[in-house]
Amino acid sequence: MGIRLFITGGTFDKTYDEISGRLLFKDTHVQEMLRLGRCRLPVEVRTLMMVDSLEMTDADRQLVLQNCRAAAEERIVVTHGTDTMTDTARVLGAASLPKTIVLTGAMVPYAFGSSDGLFNLGSALSFVQALPHGVYVAMNGRCFAWDDVVKNRELGVFEPRR
Amino acid sequence: MGIRLFITGGTFDKTYDEISGRLLFKDTHVQEMLRLGRCRLPVEVRTLMMVDSLEMTDADRQLVLQNCRAAAEERIVVTHGTDTMTDTARVLGAASLPKTIVLTGAMVPYAFGSSDGLFNLGSALSFVQALPHGVYVAMNGRCFAWDDVVKNRELGVFEPRR
Amino acid sequence: MGIRLFITGGTFDKTYDEISGRLLFKDTHVQEMLRLGRCRLPVEVRTLMMVDSLEMTDADRQLVLQNCRAAAEERIVVTHGTDTMTDTARVLGAASLPKTIVLTGAMVPYAFGSSDGLFNLGSALSFVQALPHGVYVAMNGRCFAWDDVVKNRELGVFEPRR
Amino acid sequence: MGIRLFITGGTFDKTYDEISGRLLFKDTHVQEMLRLGRCRLPVEVRTLMMVDSLEMTDADRQLVLQNCRAAAEERIVVTHGTDTMTDTARVLGAASLPKTIVLTGAMVPYAFGSSDGLFNLGSALSFVQALPHGVYVAMNGRCFAWDDVVKNRELGVFEPRR
Repeated sequence: MGIRLFITGGTFDKTYDEISGRLLFKDTHVQEMLRLGRCRLPVEVRTLMMVDSLEMTDADRQLVLQNCRAAAEERIVVTHGTDTMTDTARVLGAASLPKTIVLTGAMVPYAFGSSDGLFNLGSALSFVQALPHGVYVAMNGRCFAWDDVVKNRELGVFEPRR
Repeated sequence: MGIRLFITGGTFDKTYDEISGRLLFKDTHVQEMLRLGRCRLPVEVRTLMMVDSLEMTDADRQLVLQNCRAAAEERIVVTHGTDTMTDTARVLGAASLPKTIVLTGAMVPYAFGSSDGLFNLGSALSFVQALPHGVYVAMNGRCFAWDDVVKNRELGVFEPRR
Repeated sequence: MGIRLFITGGTFDKTYDEISGRLLFKDTHVQEMLRLGRCRLPVEVRTLMMVDSLEMTDADRQLVLQNCRAAAEERIVVTHGTDTMTDTARVLGAASLPKTIVLTGAMVPYAFGSSDGLFNLGSALSFVQALPHGVYVAMNGRCFAWDDVVKNRELGVFEPRR
Repeated sequence: MGIRLFITGGTFDKTYDEISGRLLFKDTHVQEMLRLGRCRLPVEVRTLMMVDSLEMTDADRQLVLQNCRAAAEERIVVTHGTDTMTDTARVLGAASLPKTIVLTGAMVPYAFGSSDGLFNLGSALSFVQALPHGVYVAMNGRCFAWDDVVKNRELGVFEPRR
């Protein structure tokens, strides 16, 4: 059962640039994370963009949707910045593709010792195999349907809508 | 949906003891790993034993089974050494409890930088929420039914039986 | 032989704040680093300020000087942002105190896996014990006199003046 | 000022082998540690052996001595297991070479997150530049003369003789 993994950037993949002293994007860490997880799933990784999700445009989200539609795989994981992850989930969810799509990300860059990224990647890759068609957000060990999830910005956690 | 997490030891929880220069068990790292994963699931952690799975006896496996049976929760994760994880899975599977039980572990101790533990814990906690009743092994990003899994000792990965 | 360690902030101590998604200062990591290094030196740690060295003012540098002068210890390490470390070194050096003062910092925050901070702290604490009175910058495994050091901003390394 | 770095193994360089579940030696981590420390010293690394220092023989120690004597460099760091580091220090010290030789090691393997290795390497490389000819042990942030140091095996720290 092949899995497609689309990279869009987000905190997940931010790196500290020691010359500028800023957090920015270089290459994705996902391949290294799959190695660390001794992952033996047939995962096809593709980088769609490398952006902070606060700067993701409608056109960017359409590009993600288009790629999910065009992918040969029925099971898709999308790494995404947490700030607008639920917005992209809504765009993907409204399209009702006959696929299982799981968005995930990280609160802390993978390159930091204290990152939740590896835990979340293991979680997303598992939910995508086990859940029926639909669009989901996998964060905090939980899985939310695309139309019943918000990011609580004060606590930095994902929750169901009230 | 409450989840019970039983600790039995294994590579997962081995620590380097700097006085003796040996790998041994002190406290479990699971609570720290749940924090790192920003896990917001209602997980109840209980340590059943702290053993190398090569030294796990039949009585030990019966104790694990007993605790799975007695647990109030329907969803249970068991951390376990990889060497005899499939043996314990068979004992649990043969009991046909009306529960979803997922065993997981690590090829490298969590305390090592290169551990797969956090990835596997995220994976096991996700499969246990999404899968129907049954007993499973979650390793290498994959999930195996208890009666169709072996550890390939040469490669250090889990596979279906031929 | 007691050692005084003054904290002023800098990349060394920056932390990723997962709510704001920014690098900022919380508590210093120095105590944790001393523990990690199994350091058994009598080190007295004092936080003077927690600032990005690009924002350090003349008054801030005078405060560092004042504290070096007033310290009971003859051997002093100062953690400092790398961008203006040589400026502060010049202020301290010009004062010609009868003390050995070593400034150090990090190119990458300690909280990142890829930080040079622990290496540099081990280096600074060693030079401060072994060198005669004077003011020095310890970076890249090397030690520079306060009046013969510049930061090469393109390469991100410290060098002697030409 | 060129520095020679001789590797002899020890806890410093032990790696967890995930197939056997044992700590053993593969390649040295020293090159990676020098990169992490952004070290810009002219260091020439040479692996003499890769042994647990409890298994180091008299012939092994003579080999270390021979290499120190033959090295073109006047400044030499030797990485060594902590258990018999002081024995090797005595062999080197008794030879009274016109060189500065610093032995160091680690209480916890570098590959473990909690290792003191990077701190100790930064420390040893600094002491070797700053100290006069002689043989020293650099551990715990301190530097001991070869004839005034013992390992306190209960506490896991190095101390002067009484």
